[in-house]
Amino acid sequence: MLNTITSPSVLSQLSIHSRHGRECVSPCFSLQQRNNSTSPKIKVDLDSSTGVAVLRMQSPPVNSLSLDFLTEFCINLEKLEMDRSCRGLIITSTLSKVFSAGLDIMEMYGKSPERCGEFWKAVQEMWLKLYGSNMATIAAINGSSPAGGCLMSIGCDYRIMADNPRYSIGLNETQLGIVAPFWFKDTLVNTVGNRAAELSLELGLLYSAPDALKIGLVDQLVPEDQVLSTAQDTMSKWLAVPDHARQITKSMMRKQTIDKLLSNREADITNFVSFITKDSIQRSLRMYLEMLKSRKA
Amino acid sequence: MLNTITSPSVLSQLSIHSRHGRECVSPCFSLQQRNNSTSPKIKVDLDSSTGVAVLRMQSPPVNSLSLDFLTEFCINLEKLEMDRSCRGLIITSTLSKVFSAGLDIMEMYGKSPERCGEFWKAVQEMWLKLYGSNMATIAAINGSSPAGGCLMSIGCDYRIMADNPRYSIGLNETQLGIVAPFWFKDTLVNTVGNRAAELSLELGLLYSAPDALKIGLVDQLVPEDQVLSTAQDTMSKWLAVPDHARQITKSMMRKQTIDKLLSNREADITNFVSFITKDSIQRSLRMYLEMLKSRKA
Amino acid sequence: MLNTITSPSVLSQLSIHSRHGRECVSPCFSLQQRNNSTSPKIKVDLDSSTGVAVLRMQSPPVNSLSLDFLTEFCINLEKLEMDRSCRGLIITSTLSKVFSAGLDIMEMYGKSPERCGEFWKAVQEMWLKLYGSNMATIAAINGSSPAGGCLMSIGCDYRIMADNPRYSIGLNETQLGIVAPFWFKDTLVNTVGNRAAELSLELGLLYSAPDALKIGLVDQLVPEDQVLSTAQDTMSKWLAVPDHARQITKSMMRKQTIDKLLSNREADITNFVSFITKDSIQRSLRMYLEMLKSRKA
Repeated sequence: MLNTITSPSVLSQLSIHSRHGRECVSPCFSLQQRNNSTSPKIKVDLDSSTGVAVLRMQSPPVNSLSLDFLTEFCINLEKLEMDRSCRGLIITSTLSKVFSAGLDIMEMYGKSPERCGEFWKAVQEMWLKLYGSNMATIAAINGSSPAGGCLMSIGCDYRIMADNPRYSIGLNETQLGIVAPFWFKDTLVNTVGNRAAELSLELGLLYSAPDALKIGLVDQLVPEDQVLSTAQDTMSKWLAVPDHARQITKSMMRKQTIDKLLSNREADITNFVSFITKDSIQRSLRMYLEMLKSRKA
Repeated sequence: MLNTITSPSVLSQLSIHSRHGRECVSPCFSLQQRNNSTSPKIKVDLDSSTGVAVLRMQSPPVNSLSLDFLTEFCINLEKLEMDRSCRGLIITSTLSKVFSAGLDIMEMYGKSPERCGEFWKAVQEMWLKLYGSNMATIAAINGSSPAGGCLMSIGCDYRIMADNPRYSIGLNETQLGIVAPFWFKDTLVNTVGNRAAELSLELGLLYSAPDALKIGLVDQLVPEDQVLSTAQDTMSKWLAVPDHARQITKSMMRKQTIDKLLSNREADITNFVSFITKDSIQRSLRMYLEMLKSRKA
Repeated sequence: MLNTITSPSVLSQLSIHSRHGRECVSPCFSLQQRNNSTSPKIKVDLDSSTGVAVLRMQSPPVNSLSLDFLTEFCINLEKLEMDRSCRGLIITSTLSKVFSAGLDIMEMYGKSPERCGEFWKAVQEMWLKLYGSNMATIAAINGSSPAGGCLMSIGCDYRIMADNPRYSIGLNETQLGIVAPFWFKDTLVNTVGNRAAELSLELGLLYSAPDALKIGLVDQLVPEDQVLSTAQDTMSKWLAVPDHARQITKSMMRKQTIDKLLSNREADITNFVSFITKDSIQRSLRMYLEMLKSRKA
């Protein structure tokens, strides 16, 4: 269900203006600095006294969701999920101004169909693990969070965002000529309702933090330096609820949405691969890429 | 699924009071002036420089949705849909105070089952074409818009209404003893959510423009003389989004609702015809009709 | 789908604090005073001039939903449903500060599986009769209404609550280690939407009257001494709508949710019985019971 408009005009829309007039500088796809560093992109601290883990995304410049990043993310998530002493997970970013800028464009440009499929499977896996986690999960959104970053956020149980109108969040894929797949859509509908999701997805809207609060895309805004501490305080309330009852309730609320992807997983991968490997799309990605590079220069 | 209460008390409820105390003068069904004029009921202007068509409903006194009107409406819609140069559609009214007063009662009174079925098929067609349009569609609601007029409005992608508390909008069929069919209901649920739709449909509520904004039945209120210009401005934002991505996203959001009518279309017509041709309903319509006539006298 | 956490810490959570800092004194399960009185737990007054019945719950101290209570409730509901002269039903409480405190714990402690099954069937029956009633139904919530009391409230067409922040309402089962079954969940989703229901059920939130209004869990707040009179006034507006059209519309909105329980009724009973008769759960209930008793002492 992915598709695109390949005109240059689309690709130059990186800096778009939302209908509320605020500048949205966050691209849908992001360009990750390449280095051969094997330093972890993710840091996890589990406080065994509270049972709360903090997962810090620390992959500069914008926590792009590359295959490596997603793999590391999923491995960490799985470890915590298996660890009986871990009951709650807070996800945040060590980077200034950015929670995560979404899927890494380099994973989609000039790659073999096999590799693209592997990448998309990792995106699915990230969402499946997060949306279906038995842990209480809170996104401590301390910066902008477009596209894949937004998906990660709405995969959690609760969202606390920095009260900064310059930070934005949303599934803005449509702005770049791309269509969010059905499970992105389902997750958004579950979070903000059908109409807000429709408007949001058709226009590819990025919402400033205050606007995101208004439509329920995030649950709470706090001053930037209190995002993590508020997440910790909020987590203690979530953990006051008996785990088992909360887990069964969560499953009752989310199972249908998760099962829909599980039973269409291969078709969803095939769709993505056949779309992203099209010549027209690859040309678009190259132009997009060159623009991102020229920006950095 | 249509049904009625045929008591005179129901038929005298034309001028009903909403729970907010405002007078709602808009009937569910409307009585169209009969003339043999072949002048078009609809005027379409396509600006080829912008790709935006403005469809003006100009069938006095209240833009009743007669079979002729609906046929003309659908033909125009189809033409625009096929026209590659047309990307956006704004629907508005040339009449003072009324967007559209809904289905024309004369199409349902004293007509053969065949003719009634033909009429209902045209109502379905109007909604199917509008709700599933590939164009970006904006309703510029510059007057009251009850029943069928409301259906037309919520069939669009975006609704801008004149900020006038005397103008009302809503699916008020129940007030007249009639039941909105399932696809009216589905469209309303998709727009305002399940609970607001339930309350709205069970009570047959007409909402003043400000109340309509509060429940999300319309998206925006502007001064009466700025409805069309705001629609034009808003359309340019919609057209900044790549068409193909917007269209696929729109289809993803609406396909299920549309398919439900498509696979129950004949049954829905049969239901309507068997209901509307009942003696009791025909008697009700005659009384309603006489009251409308005496009002005009 | 019922389950529990049996740790003492859970059972001592009777007096919990909502995230808004208000004390929630209403337990999920309640302990009914035992007496052998055969005095009716419910009083019904039908005003034949208006067609409106007022059903008063008068089973001190907290209108616990025991098997006897539910049986009496259902018999009364059925009588009114069959009575052609009754078109509207208002449900309220004669007790101070409490609408209904929910399911009676004594029906679940030390009872045979057969008896537990009979009890759960009565809970189902109460909801089925209320949610699917042909009458216009208004909950005049003049006190706290947790768990089963909340279910009864959201089973009605409209909810008017006393504007007292000390009164709370919500499906707080999770707080006690229990999971609200799917039809509790479906009813809540239908009322407040998916996200508010998810948050509400995962955390077992009790909402103060003002907070309940904010999320749409109740429709209106009025001063405590005007709850019943406002319900009467509101009912007259509901009864101004033709019954038949309102009933068909109501059925169209609720049928799917009702059918889901109807086709899973036995499985739902089996689930409940196998859960509640577990040794661990029975131990939990005993501790809970002892705490409730010590409180009263």
